[in-house]
Amino acid sequence: MNPKNRQWTLARRPQGMLQEEDFAYRETTIPEAALDEGQVLLQNLWLGFDATQREWLKDQEGYLPPVGVGEVVRASSVARVLRSTNPALPEGALVQGLYGWQDYALAHPGDALPPALLPPGVTPEMALAALGGTALTAYFGLVDVGGIAAGQTVVVSAAGGATGSMAVQIAKLRGARVIGIAGGAAKCAWVRGLGAEDCIDYRNEALAERLRTLCPDGIDIAFDNVGGAHLEAMIACIAPRGRVVLCGQIAGYDAQQPPPGPRNLMNLIYRRARMEGFLMLDYLHRTGEAFAELGPWMASGELRWEADVQEGFHRIPQTLLRLFRGENMGKQLLRIDRQEAQP
Amino acid sequence: MNPKNRQWTLARRPQGMLQEEDFAYRETTIPEAALDEGQVLLQNLWLGFDATQREWLKDQEGYLPPVGVGEVVRASSVARVLRSTNPALPEGALVQGLYGWQDYALAHPGDALPPALLPPGVTPEMALAALGGTALTAYFGLVDVGGIAAGQTVVVSAAGGATGSMAVQIAKLRGARVIGIAGGAAKCAWVRGLGAEDCIDYRNEALAERLRTLCPDGIDIAFDNVGGAHLEAMIACIAPRGRVVLCGQIAGYDAQQPPPGPRNLMNLIYRRARMEGFLMLDYLHRTGEAFAELGPWMASGELRWEADVQEGFHRIPQTLLRLFRGENMGKQLLRIDRQEAQP
Repeated sequence: MNPKNRQWTLARRPQGMLQEEDFAYRETTIPEAALDEGQVLLQNLWLGFDATQREWLKDQEGYLPPVGVGEVVRASSVARVLRSTNPALPEGALVQGLYGWQDYALAHPGDALPPALLPPGVTPEMALAALGGTALTAYFGLVDVGGIAAGQTVVVSAAGGATGSMAVQIAKLRGARVIGIAGGAAKCAWVRGLGAEDCIDYRNEALAERLRTLCPDGIDIAFDNVGGAHLEAMIACIAPRGRVVLCGQIAGYDAQQPPPGPRNLMNLIYRRARMEGFLMLDYLHRTGEAFAELGPWMASGELRWEADVQEGFHRIPQTLLRLFRGENMGKQLLRIDRQEAQP
Repeated sequence: MNPKNRQWTLARRPQGMLQEEDFAYRETTIPEAALDEGQVLLQNLWLGFDATQREWLKDQEGYLPPVGVGEVVRASSVARVLRSTNPALPEGALVQGLYGWQDYALAHPGDALPPALLPPGVTPEMALAALGGTALTAYFGLVDVGGIAAGQTVVVSAAGGATGSMAVQIAKLRGARVIGIAGGAAKCAWVRGLGAEDCIDYRNEALAERLRTLCPDGIDIAFDNVGGAHLEAMIACIAPRGRVVLCGQIAGYDAQQPPPGPRNLMNLIYRRARMEGFLMLDYLHRTGEAFAELGPWMASGELRWEADVQEGFHRIPQTLLRLFRGENMGKQLLRIDRQEAQP
């Protein structure tokens, strides 16, 4: 075992657009000396990147405590059990959890977010890109918050992202008519290939006008990952009794001051429409329900996932920045390689 | 009968703040020549003023068609039946409806919004100020959209207005803890007298800070009539699973460009909160349900209403402007006087 535990910590509170300098590299010892009863030592193999990580770096109240300056950056990962005092988590097993930007971490089944064993046949990429928060977020957002039904019109912003691409497919498989919004022709082509009837390239098309044309009877469910102008354009087209499912607000995560909210909330009154936020964490007890429906679709290949895989521990900070530049198609992942050169 | 039908019409599409010059006075003949089967001729006695009238004057899609330039301004009123071919609406009866800024109008029970007979013992002021849209809007907003329950914290913006003052009282009578927001010390004192635990004077106090102090456990129901900064301050304090009941957006009605929406919609995600618009028109079939609860409270004097009564046909346009200057306390009304001097 390598005697060092490489870590990326938060160097300073990020201001505005994330920068690589917001993070600092350090090496510490491996936390292996004495495992408590039931505890395991984990080695991270893969990291998942989520827009919500940007929110964890802010000094503000959120759904999880902020990451402190000097602390290891919180991140989802798949790790191998290296040493175990727990028969339920045997050495060699793969688990998923929030083990952060480091090589080694300790975990215990009694943790607030306990380590979750990967089901048989599930690869780390699949776990992070499809089975984890991504698919569950899309599923419960559409089904529980949005009340999706066949024949409805569903619009998904950031449709080329990890959650958005799942939402497009799940909505389509549930019998809805789906319109995507994404940046660039390549992403839009991919989103159409996932089953969207059309996909608006917001970088090169007039978003609000195109939405009006494509949704003449209004939007029944607006699944929004972006906020700002995208949200405003969707509210302008919301159908009577429509639902705006607030999944994320990536347009605002990186800003010093979030962009102005939609000016047209009056339309929620005229259309008797509802806007509702949700967190996937609230649905962890209902994952079985979701996988009962998603599992067969994944097994049959009807529900596809794409991962953008980067390599190397030293590239972790710059890989997070890819999300905010819209460079990833599908889920942003990074494979940690112990053999690479040090940064 | 006076041989003229005085009218105020829309002279031009208002830009920004309403002005008296947006309206034009004219006299036409009384529409009495030939009453169709079932039709009645009405004489307006009282007018009610609502912020939503400003929206009707915009050239935009709404829940009712816009008032055209040159057309009589749409307004709620209480009128007397002058001539009738309909036994259900006998001559001398008082009815409520949308009969506009004029002396005389025709009505038919088959109208989209049919004339509603005033119940026995109900005065025109009471009908317009308390029994009409005002109380029903507050009631269904709190009960149906907000899901009010005893012990919850309810914050009402424009709490000194017609709908807001009803919402304060109904929430209190339903067992909630109520905080009002209003402009000026006099209005705030009145709102406290209606049962609010406290009332924030947004003109002289730091709204966001005061809300945080007064609602340490968050706002369960934000009943918003204002939008803009008031809405943002309420969202900042929304409780987990809280509801923002969107009743109106008076901050934006008078603006060329509505003010920016709340920048903190992310908080709806963190708090799993819901924001929902509604229109009282959707609840007309459930008025019985509301009056069963409101009636006894009104009879006992527990549910009070206040009217700001102006006089004279020539003062109609300037009376509407009072709403947008926040000059009215309680419901803005005007009594039409046939004997007054012409404008």
